[in-house]
Amino acid sequence: MRMKVLDHGYVEFVEAWGHGKELTVHDTGFIDNEIGIIESARQSTQGNFRGWGKDQTLLEYLYLSKPKHAGPFEFAGMTIEVQAPIFVFREWHRHRTQSYNEMSARYAPLPDNYYEPNFDNVMERAHTITKNKQAQGIDGIFLTEENSKTWLELLDTVYNRAELFYDFGLKIGIPKELARIGMPVGHYSRMRATGNLRNWLAFLTLRMDPAAQWEIQQFANAVGSIIHQKFPRTWKLFRLETSKK
Amino acid sequence: MRMKVLDHGYVEFVEAWGHGKELTVHDTGFIDNEIGIIESARQSTQGNFRGWGKDQTLLEYLYLSKPKHAGPFEFAGMTIEVQAPIFVFREWHRHRTQSYNEMSARYAPLPDNYYEPNFDNVMERAHTITKNKQAQGIDGIFLTEENSKTWLELLDTVYNRAELFYDFGLKIGIPKELARIGMPVGHYSRMRATGNLRNWLAFLTLRMDPAAQWEIQQFANAVGSIIHQKFPRTWKLFRLETSKK
Amino acid sequence: MRMKVLDHGYVEFVEAWGHGKELTVHDTGFIDNEIGIIESARQSTQGNFRGWGKDQTLLEYLYLSKPKHAGPFEFAGMTIEVQAPIFVFREWHRHRTQSYNEMSARYAPLPDNYYEPNFDNVMERAHTITKNKQAQGIDGIFLTEENSKTWLELLDTVYNRAELFYDFGLKIGIPKELARIGMPVGHYSRMRATGNLRNWLAFLTLRMDPAAQWEIQQFANAVGSIIHQKFPRTWKLFRLETSKK
Amino acid sequence: MRMKVLDHGYVEFVEAWGHGKELTVHDTGFIDNEIGIIESARQSTQGNFRGWGKDQTLLEYLYLSKPKHAGPFEFAGMTIEVQAPIFVFREWHRHRTQSYNEMSARYAPLPDNYYEPNFDNVMERAHTITKNKQAQGIDGIFLTEENSKTWLELLDTVYNRAELFYDFGLKIGIPKELARIGMPVGHYSRMRATGNLRNWLAFLTLRMDPAAQWEIQQFANAVGSIIHQKFPRTWKLFRLETSKK
Repeated sequence: MRMKVLDHGYVEFVEAWGHGKELTVHDTGFIDNEIGIIESARQSTQGNFRGWGKDQTLLEYLYLSKPKHAGPFEFAGMTIEVQAPIFVFREWHRHRTQSYNEMSARYAPLPDNYYEPNFDNVMERAHTITKNKQAQGIDGIFLTEENSKTWLELLDTVYNRAELFYDFGLKIGIPKELARIGMPVGHYSRMRATGNLRNWLAFLTLRMDPAAQWEIQQFANAVGSIIHQKFPRTWKLFRLETSKK
Repeated sequence: MRMKVLDHGYVEFVEAWGHGKELTVHDTGFIDNEIGIIESARQSTQGNFRGWGKDQTLLEYLYLSKPKHAGPFEFAGMTIEVQAPIFVFREWHRHRTQSYNEMSARYAPLPDNYYEPNFDNVMERAHTITKNKQAQGIDGIFLTEENSKTWLELLDTVYNRAELFYDFGLKIGIPKELARIGMPVGHYSRMRATGNLRNWLAFLTLRMDPAAQWEIQQFANAVGSIIHQKFPRTWKLFRLETSKK
Repeated sequence: MRMKVLDHGYVEFVEAWGHGKELTVHDTGFIDNEIGIIESARQSTQGNFRGWGKDQTLLEYLYLSKPKHAGPFEFAGMTIEVQAPIFVFREWHRHRTQSYNEMSARYAPLPDNYYEPNFDNVMERAHTITKNKQAQGIDGIFLTEENSKTWLELLDTVYNRAELFYDFGLKIGIPKELARIGMPVGHYSRMRATGNLRNWLAFLTLRMDPAAQWEIQQFANAVGSIIHQKFPRTWKLFRLETSKK
Repeated sequence: MRMKVLDHGYVEFVEAWGHGKELTVHDTGFIDNEIGIIESARQSTQGNFRGWGKDQTLLEYLYLSKPKHAGPFEFAGMTIEVQAPIFVFREWHRHRTQSYNEMSARYAPLPDNYYEPNFDNVMERAHTITKNKQAQGIDGIFLTEENSKTWLELLDTVYNRAELFYDFGLKIGIPKELARIGMPVGHYSRMRATGNLRNWLAFLTLRMDPAAQWEIQQFANAVGSIIHQKFPRTWKLFRLETSKK
């Protein structure tokens, strides 16, 4: 299950866990990875807490309580593979509760993929009036279609030259860890990321938010749709909670 | 797979992960949960690092390098269920990288299980000369067989009275969260614990060590034998490393 | 600054940080430990973000934004010393973002302090109608004054016998790590705890909440009043936020 | 105390903590921030553990024990400010136990600083025979002086064009968060970083190591010399330990 994101990026499901004591593969191939959350929560009460009889009731109680009982959601989790521009990874890696393994330009030559924003997207973002200063240009400047096109062409040139420069460095014997220092942050990289469900939801809360950079929102949305498939009941509660804010 | 530990305790395997992109169940029922580690590590080099051709060579390189490449071992993990005395949990919970869900005496009456050390074990520990002051009695006191027997009988009485007192409190209407305050730390409790493989090994390094309290060593050994079964190649490297110290 | 809590417990301020580049001691002895938060946040914008001109405005922006900009509150922190019953520490230590160093019954004989609840407090808690099942007795049982007095007397006996049993064990040569297993969880222990301000506030959110056990609420309140003194602006924002929930 | 690193970078001391109950400023201005470690460790034994009488003996015991008693070193810590190229921050931020606040290109225009390696340094690194593949060029290629000079001149051009392209984007109204995507990872950024002493030492273990990229080694060395000044006894033990490996 690989979901395309932006021009050359993707989010690909690797594996999930949380099935608890019995690994049951349903006819559809679906594995219920929310049983581990429920089994873990039942641990607290040895099974005899009124109103926790049904799994769904219990999940709702855990998630919607104030304060939330978030602990049991650490008993399920997910690993994914992501290809995204470096500037997206720079934001992603600030989440210290996930584990990462990223391709290293110190070990192997970098692949030739660069992020080129879509013309319509650039125009739309430049002209949206938003409270979010980061997503805007400098005040009082109106981006014209012509300027936007020129900028995209120049970006292409910047990328091409960076690639040529990188190849030249490797070809003449510059150490790999140095050869890459001209690489723009729009260059794609790749990683695996893993974490428990509680932490994935915390990531989504921040990165699906309209205040996040548009590009990382696209990746977060892709992660969200994987969570929707793999942890459908928790996803529903997450959406209910987010919609209230 | 439930392993008995001490008189009423156990460590029970719940689930493991780390199978990577393909979940392969072998004829024997064995699922290889070290593939996720290897796939994640190969991410770094895009596959073209000499000498990493074979999985085993790669795992050895990661584990035995100085400094160790520990990151990929966060891409596999394990959930277990544990029944152990409270004083063991008090030490266990100091490991802040695992997630816990323990039964709560605030929700449900406690089960009637208490840890009674074995006579031979008490004698042996009291008479072992060790650099580990914690494992010894106060200097210059020699534990006799008779005193040891008396102590074990008295312990039994302490436990019985604590149980009677607890039941009495519940029966007359003392809030559950208060009724338990006379419970001795030798009383058993139960929890689920989950963590990634890197963190489980860090736990074992400290708790299988002879400097750890004897009781938690028994639980750590049980956890170790589960890891041996579920992550055999990593276990071998862990043992190699520990034996050198 | 040591604040008495319960019958034998306390919370004592040890040190705070967050003063940033200049350590300024005011005439009153007050050190402003919120400058570190502000300096760190200004780092993001290189000083030229409109509306962040005043420290107070900036702190409010960080704290009250949705989602909250919690990162800068990790640039201040606090160490305290706490004496509390073991059952309180059992709950406290589930907060994995603080660092702890607790006295160890494995190294040194335990001090002779036990928590005896106050009669009026027991009666009040037993008779309060609450949605919080943990804080109640078993349904349908009405705690009488007489039974409550008997229970408190019996608790005293349980504690006395536990103390005698512990002393006896040490006296006859039982290893210290074993001698303590009859100790009730109402026994006092002592620790140092340290963490950054963001994490302290997360602790308070859960432990000052009416759903928390009454005893840990008292300790959390004491921690809160220290934060009030040492980080007055952040405290005000924290209270504003909590009062809205 | 600002230490220059590379051509435009620095590490600047902001504040340290760990003075424990009494803040003592010595005549020389020196504040002993290792008292907090010692006070916290003494907590474990209530003061009566033989051989821990002297602070120095205790610190050595904690640090040099197998396994190490690392917990008390979480009771001291340090905040610094760092200016370094983005590729250095990319490695730095993989340390998940520190807290970071970095300047954001989404809020404010980026400063005009780029890392240009020194000619001699490039030649030396290209010609050093090392087991560390990352630090080398592609096998069988010998870097000539002439090629190295050409590469450095081209790097300068890459940087200039990236700067022009960035300014052009801002000038025509491209949103700030997009305008930066052509920025090379050799561009400087700035942040505050904070963490406890245990975690700073873990950072140094990995980043002062010869296997680390040369540039981050320079920053780690600067951090090390601050720790040397602020935590001299712990530093001595750290060096003793590292020299043995």
